[in-house]
Amino acid sequence: MTRPVKHWDLALQLDIGGADQPLFVCIARGLEQAVAQGRLGAGARVPGTRQLAAALGVHRNTVIAAYRELLAEGYLESRVGLGTFVAASLPESKPRRFGKPPPLPGLARTLGYALGAQAVQAPGYVPVPRGTLALYGGLPDVRLLPRAALARAYRRALADPATLSYGDPAGHPRLRQALASMLSATRGLAIGEQDLVVTRGSQMALALCARVLLSAGDVVAVEQHGYAPAWQALRAAGARLCPLPLDAHGLSVDALATLCETEPVRAVYLTAHHQYPTTVTLSASRRLALLALARRKRFAILEDDYDHEFHYEGRPILPLASADTAGSVVYIGTLSKVLAPGVRIGYVVAPAPLLGALVAQRFYLDRQGDQATEAAVAELFEDGEVQRHVRRARRVYRARRDLCAHLLARSFGDELSFRVPPGGMAFWIKARRGLPVERWLGCAQREGVLFQPGRLFDFEQRASPFLRLGFAGLDERELVEAMRRLQRARKQARG
Amino acid sequence: MTRPVKHWDLALQLDIGGADQPLFVCIARGLEQAVAQGRLGAGARVPGTRQLAAALGVHRNTVIAAYRELLAEGYLESRVGLGTFVAASLPESKPRRFGKPPPLPGLARTLGYALGAQAVQAPGYVPVPRGTLALYGGLPDVRLLPRAALARAYRRALADPATLSYGDPAGHPRLRQALASMLSATRGLAIGEQDLVVTRGSQMALALCARVLLSAGDVVAVEQHGYAPAWQALRAAGARLCPLPLDAHGLSVDALATLCETEPVRAVYLTAHHQYPTTVTLSASRRLALLALARRKRFAILEDDYDHEFHYEGRPILPLASADTAGSVVYIGTLSKVLAPGVRIGYVVAPAPLLGALVAQRFYLDRQGDQATEAAVAELFEDGEVQRHVRRARRVYRARRDLCAHLLARSFGDELSFRVPPGGMAFWIKARRGLPVERWLGCAQREGVLFQPGRLFDFEQRASPFLRLGFAGLDERELVEAMRRLQRARKQARG
Repeated sequence: MTRPVKHWDLALQLDIGGADQPLFVCIARGLEQAVAQGRLGAGARVPGTRQLAAALGVHRNTVIAAYRELLAEGYLESRVGLGTFVAASLPESKPRRFGKPPPLPGLARTLGYALGAQAVQAPGYVPVPRGTLALYGGLPDVRLLPRAALARAYRRALADPATLSYGDPAGHPRLRQALASMLSATRGLAIGEQDLVVTRGSQMALALCARVLLSAGDVVAVEQHGYAPAWQALRAAGARLCPLPLDAHGLSVDALATLCETEPVRAVYLTAHHQYPTTVTLSASRRLALLALARRKRFAILEDDYDHEFHYEGRPILPLASADTAGSVVYIGTLSKVLAPGVRIGYVVAPAPLLGALVAQRFYLDRQGDQATEAAVAELFEDGEVQRHVRRARRVYRARRDLCAHLLARSFGDELSFRVPPGGMAFWIKARRGLPVERWLGCAQREGVLFQPGRLFDFEQRASPFLRLGFAGLDERELVEAMRRLQRARKQARG
Repeated sequence: MTRPVKHWDLALQLDIGGADQPLFVCIARGLEQAVAQGRLGAGARVPGTRQLAAALGVHRNTVIAAYRELLAEGYLESRVGLGTFVAASLPESKPRRFGKPPPLPGLARTLGYALGAQAVQAPGYVPVPRGTLALYGGLPDVRLLPRAALARAYRRALADPATLSYGDPAGHPRLRQALASMLSATRGLAIGEQDLVVTRGSQMALALCARVLLSAGDVVAVEQHGYAPAWQALRAAGARLCPLPLDAHGLSVDALATLCETEPVRAVYLTAHHQYPTTVTLSASRRLALLALARRKRFAILEDDYDHEFHYEGRPILPLASADTAGSVVYIGTLSKVLAPGVRIGYVVAPAPLLGALVAQRFYLDRQGDQATEAAVAELFEDGEVQRHVRRARRVYRARRDLCAHLLARSFGDELSFRVPPGGMAFWIKARRGLPVERWLGCAQREGVLFQPGRLFDFEQRASPFLRLGFAGLDERELVEAMRRLQRARKQARG
């Protein structure tokens, strides 16, 4: 029976080599150093003498002598019945900040060069402040998720110790089976578990595809408005990106054909179902033209179908992959919207030789997925929990979309123009001249509401009269309140 | 109240464009196609007429007419009280194997070139057969893990919906705090949560470091015997690897100094504490020499301290990072041995500019970790569960090490020579000439026991008289049985 102890064995740098000092002094100096380095903060409890003696392999009396020394010097103080503590009155110690290396030759200077060669723009993570309503486009309402069922499934997954060991880098077999069934039934893809690899969300799916398909300098066509982190994943693999215009029917396949005349286009990355961020669906004639062009010019189509499930008008459009007879399409999906972004599960469906290379890349990058999470999510599929959740979420999101359209029209009249999206989780809105988007956003932030300015989605990050406004993540009461705050912010932005 | 349904809405490719066929025929042909593609297997239940009619947005009578057509044609059969099914007697349908694209021009052919450019060797995942005892070096005994506590912590983590949303790509703040405390106390690193990034195990830690620190053609020194997936991660970033000799004091720093005379060494990757796989600890004098050399030659030291906790003789040796005053050392650790490989949590401690670049790379590769898992593991640290588990596992593994040493000596006498490792989870064993390792392994596999041949760890993958034999993952009864099987296999290998 072990006693619960909430601290770690303390590692001391003891300079015991020199015979000129007794052992207890060495230990005292080691503890002093730990305090000076900030590893033992003022007021922190030090280990018991018995425990430290055992850890150091010395007699307990030696540790007692060292502690007495430090008590005398005022480094430590003893509290009756509680133990021994670092003195609370010590001048606040400044731990050596590993983050700020001293100005010596070394990694800190060499770094400049290395980062120069591989630099990517840091994303700058800023959490949404508490109380702020984020009308972000990519956020599902994770409160709808059957969390108790997920927790139960996770517990059951852990019951098998094998789940905690090394496993298949292609993903847990049960999850691959569940995903293959879902894709067979709903996406017109006649596939089995051997035809897909499980990834960490669509971001890793895309990063893996980029690394396997592309070489430095390869040309990849993308949509003029799109998902910047996807572009970065392509760039990280050395791709040269060429943006293509969009219109009410989606990506201009004519422009792509023209590009193919002058450039050896190696791949096109697109969001055909609900174009990100404009929500437009690629028209049937363009789908056929794109597939024919890919076949003729032998480029790969990276189809990112990130929110297939959330289509509110008629049936969802089957993906390009379902109509692909030439093996041109690499199909990327995710459970980030179906379940939650935090679950980090995505997948790639691809022809066998590509799939093998993807699994190898995944292995050297990440070994394998979190098997317990993968097994738990597989169970939610097997029990129909995911299916039920998707149906419910779709109903809820449709109602929120309609409410949001109503509120936007009522609150902003013709200042904002938009079309009600047939699917997805966001409106793509054009603000009239009199309402400058960036200024409005600044005021909105102070009012406690956030949306995404069009600039974030533009290939050149140009200022834009557009904005993206997500409706799925907030409930009706929150949407009404968010709209009120947006109205107040508008007043300030115009005033 | 939704009814539990365990199948997905069926997506049909309906060719309704042509006015020459009535709607019910289109639906019948769509279903036929789904059967032909193998998306609806023989004997599968088809959706109810009401459900399909709602999904397709047609009158229920139209679906009834389509089903009647298919019943008449023998595609479907009706079972009283059960519903309508795809006929069980249909010739077995062959789904289009996405894995085997038809021999058309397209991705399948283009692929050859792309894979050639970025090819990495596939790891070839082979699960351990049921009943086989795997004496694998890197496997902790996950049965010792406080799984019930982990499951409870996971459930509590899910109670906060924010855990399921987007979060900090550097890792959950609570986990970073817990890891920083542990590293401060046990590794002599005076760091705070801002000084580390959480990764997916040490594999991703290393892949990120390689991508951020290296450019194509950069020279990286490695140990002659080592961890092949680490080498692959370095190679994937374009590194040219130079193996260095090892002896009883670890990596030869003299050989590294010589290499530096002729090559611009950019980094050295090593396992200083318990050298992988030889279990040797880098000697104090070589540690100092290595740090001085790194400072003078301005290369980075990638220190992979994968099993720091499991040291059985005296105190664990503090890492190189704790003695580094120049910012040369990038310190990589993992919870794969502390907790379990399946949990997939590792970390990198590095100077600030490098850390920022690592987080950016992580973002574009994987967005963020699994926040629920990270929060759950943080709770296990906060409650002292991890600390308690480590102490217990250390005691258990030490006993297993001693048992294993005893059994090896008793069963194999001087056929095998080894030294009892001061830490880690495996023996590094040399087999005498008369016992060919590869043949022995072949026989062992048939007897239901596995070990790792030395070839796997050699930089050139040369046949070798060495083998690695892990002792941590099996309990005493299993170790005794494994040794019996190894003896039987030896007889066959020699006979």
